[in-house]
Amino acid sequence: MTSAPDSVGLVEAQTAHFDTPLALASGSQLDRYTLCFETYGELNADHSNAILICHALSGHHHVAGRYHPDDKAAGWWDNMVGPGKPIDTRRFFVVGVNNLGGCHGSTGPSSIDPASGQPFGSRFPVMTVPDWVCTQARLADRLGIERWAAVIGGSLGGMQALQWSLAYPDRIAHALVIASAPRLSAQNIAFNDVARQAILTDPDFHGGDFYAHGVVPRRGLRLARMLGHITYLSDDGMGAKFGRMLRSGEYQYGYDVEFEIESYLRYQGDKFSDYFDANTYLLMTKALDYFDPAASHQGDLVAALKPARARFLVAAFTSDWRFSPERSHETVKALVAAGKRVAYAEIESAHGHDAFLMLDPPYVELMRTYLNNVAREVNA
Amino acid sequence: MTSAPDSVGLVEAQTAHFDTPLALASGSQLDRYTLCFETYGELNADHSNAILICHALSGHHHVAGRYHPDDKAAGWWDNMVGPGKPIDTRRFFVVGVNNLGGCHGSTGPSSIDPASGQPFGSRFPVMTVPDWVCTQARLADRLGIERWAAVIGGSLGGMQALQWSLAYPDRIAHALVIASAPRLSAQNIAFNDVARQAILTDPDFHGGDFYAHGVVPRRGLRLARMLGHITYLSDDGMGAKFGRMLRSGEYQYGYDVEFEIESYLRYQGDKFSDYFDANTYLLMTKALDYFDPAASHQGDLVAALKPARARFLVAAFTSDWRFSPERSHETVKALVAAGKRVAYAEIESAHGHDAFLMLDPPYVELMRTYLNNVAREVNA
Repeated sequence: MTSAPDSVGLVEAQTAHFDTPLALASGSQLDRYTLCFETYGELNADHSNAILICHALSGHHHVAGRYHPDDKAAGWWDNMVGPGKPIDTRRFFVVGVNNLGGCHGSTGPSSIDPASGQPFGSRFPVMTVPDWVCTQARLADRLGIERWAAVIGGSLGGMQALQWSLAYPDRIAHALVIASAPRLSAQNIAFNDVARQAILTDPDFHGGDFYAHGVVPRRGLRLARMLGHITYLSDDGMGAKFGRMLRSGEYQYGYDVEFEIESYLRYQGDKFSDYFDANTYLLMTKALDYFDPAASHQGDLVAALKPARARFLVAAFTSDWRFSPERSHETVKALVAAGKRVAYAEIESAHGHDAFLMLDPPYVELMRTYLNNVAREVNA
Repeated sequence: MTSAPDSVGLVEAQTAHFDTPLALASGSQLDRYTLCFETYGELNADHSNAILICHALSGHHHVAGRYHPDDKAAGWWDNMVGPGKPIDTRRFFVVGVNNLGGCHGSTGPSSIDPASGQPFGSRFPVMTVPDWVCTQARLADRLGIERWAAVIGGSLGGMQALQWSLAYPDRIAHALVIASAPRLSAQNIAFNDVARQAILTDPDFHGGDFYAHGVVPRRGLRLARMLGHITYLSDDGMGAKFGRMLRSGEYQYGYDVEFEIESYLRYQGDKFSDYFDANTYLLMTKALDYFDPAASHQGDLVAALKPARARFLVAAFTSDWRFSPERSHETVKALVAAGKRVAYAEIESAHGHDAFLMLDPPYVELMRTYLNNVAREVNA
């Protein structure tokens, strides 16, 4: 199978090992760790054309391209990243990284703890968005990137882009904060907690040390993913796609799969529970819950955003109820009040929170236009 | 403890046994069954002042009053039903009934199946809203009530009120359909299915026959209830009540309870799993999923509503996202198009779906005024 001309083509994951101890927000420390990452495109002579893509809850470093010609699926943002695509790899050097604590190659709960020779499991520390951004900065050092042309992320990835602008104001020119929020609401936390409780109370979780038992808390992960999916789709979108359609055309009066929406959710849950690490899921949801840059400023988001020097693109989708446009308004208003340069786009879409991964034409056009301007700034 | 003057005071549950076989929508049949019910107030001479209260997913027949002077909690709608309250027991004879399949005294999955001497468990048939309304009509016969002055219900209870108007057009003067919908959306079904899957995949569920194992699928029920609670409250209401408040004032960087909203949800889940029957929960959610009077009219709700002769009050709450005002609009528009008499109220409330159980003043006033008029019609 030949790659399409706008594909980055075949790619390879790389690893970077770090031996400098990392002090975490939790007070814990990791003495050494590995980050798994991929790059697409070429770093230009003055290293000014680099873009970091931050992933969301279940994402990873494999952003674009395929590992093998026969791979059915490409990277998770392949529709946005490639030669001639909005994040244009002919102009930008694009970096995707699996966050620390992940389950796609970076050190995480399922990795072997050198101290014990066993998987970290319950001993792996809880991560925060600032912790991740710190590790991403170390990776940038390693790659010779002093300043990102842009840091881009949707959802939890958007929180990382925002955090970059606060933690390293001089190392980021543009922050693209998409379908995100400056902090979770009580309802957001509530959904995360139900998902966590599903995993934590699964008898196969074994307090996080299920690896030694040769099982995975599949039931819990499956429920967590099913629930997550409901919050990723819009009510209308789900209605348009599935409505009340029945698999067999009539009621079964039992508890087997019956409505098409049930079939879809269970399939998504099953698939996810086959490959995703339960401890990573827990840790990612906690990072979401904890993110709150205003907290260290008595809840004053404007004060929290003062250090930022980046320019911002904040984008929200009309049918996103997980991080509704109102949540992006909070970010935008605080950025404006803090005197920052910010563009805001509210994009009409029926795709709910998932819209940040889809190709609604106004979204594609927005990204293309914005990043064209970024490219011009760095002569990319 | 003396009852307040506007309380129905001490009450007793009653039971009615039925030996006439009941043919169910599923094709199954129950040869005999018991309904548990309560009544408040006095039936007038011409039996014209009776009101039926239909309960929602986790409700029952204990609508008002207390069983013992020391009972901490009164019936679930005690704030609405009593002498001088909007559903005024000085004027109306009010009937509450535990739906068939319930777990509060009516025959249900946890009842002993006379055929086996064991709890029905997985052999208890799936119920539908039309099945329930049929059993309620039989109870009305037993009580000498030819025609209800009103049938009232919120949420799933509202579906029963609507169904009454279709199944027995001459036996219901007013249908009060509150915080309800003419059928579930794909998103509604999706939430129900996650709750069901939590129960069905709990190792202690034992295919519905957990009674024989001396266990209950507590983990699953708990998750189902936690999830349910999220959908009962509004995002804003949850934010106002819990926000991002932490139990201990600072992050714990672990998976124990941390945010106040987590504490609240887990408490609700724990409490619920102590007393509610898992099979009843499954069956109630299926009745919700199945309700769709338009289905037998090629999806034409207007055609489905043609038989109704009742007058309707449809009420919705602004912050209810489980059954949003748009869902009530569907009912109202179809009723109007079908030439029915309908009043619609959209009530400003921060209480989300739960608002139908709360005392927002405009809601209380609406109910009081509407039911005053009903009382006048029947000289109650």
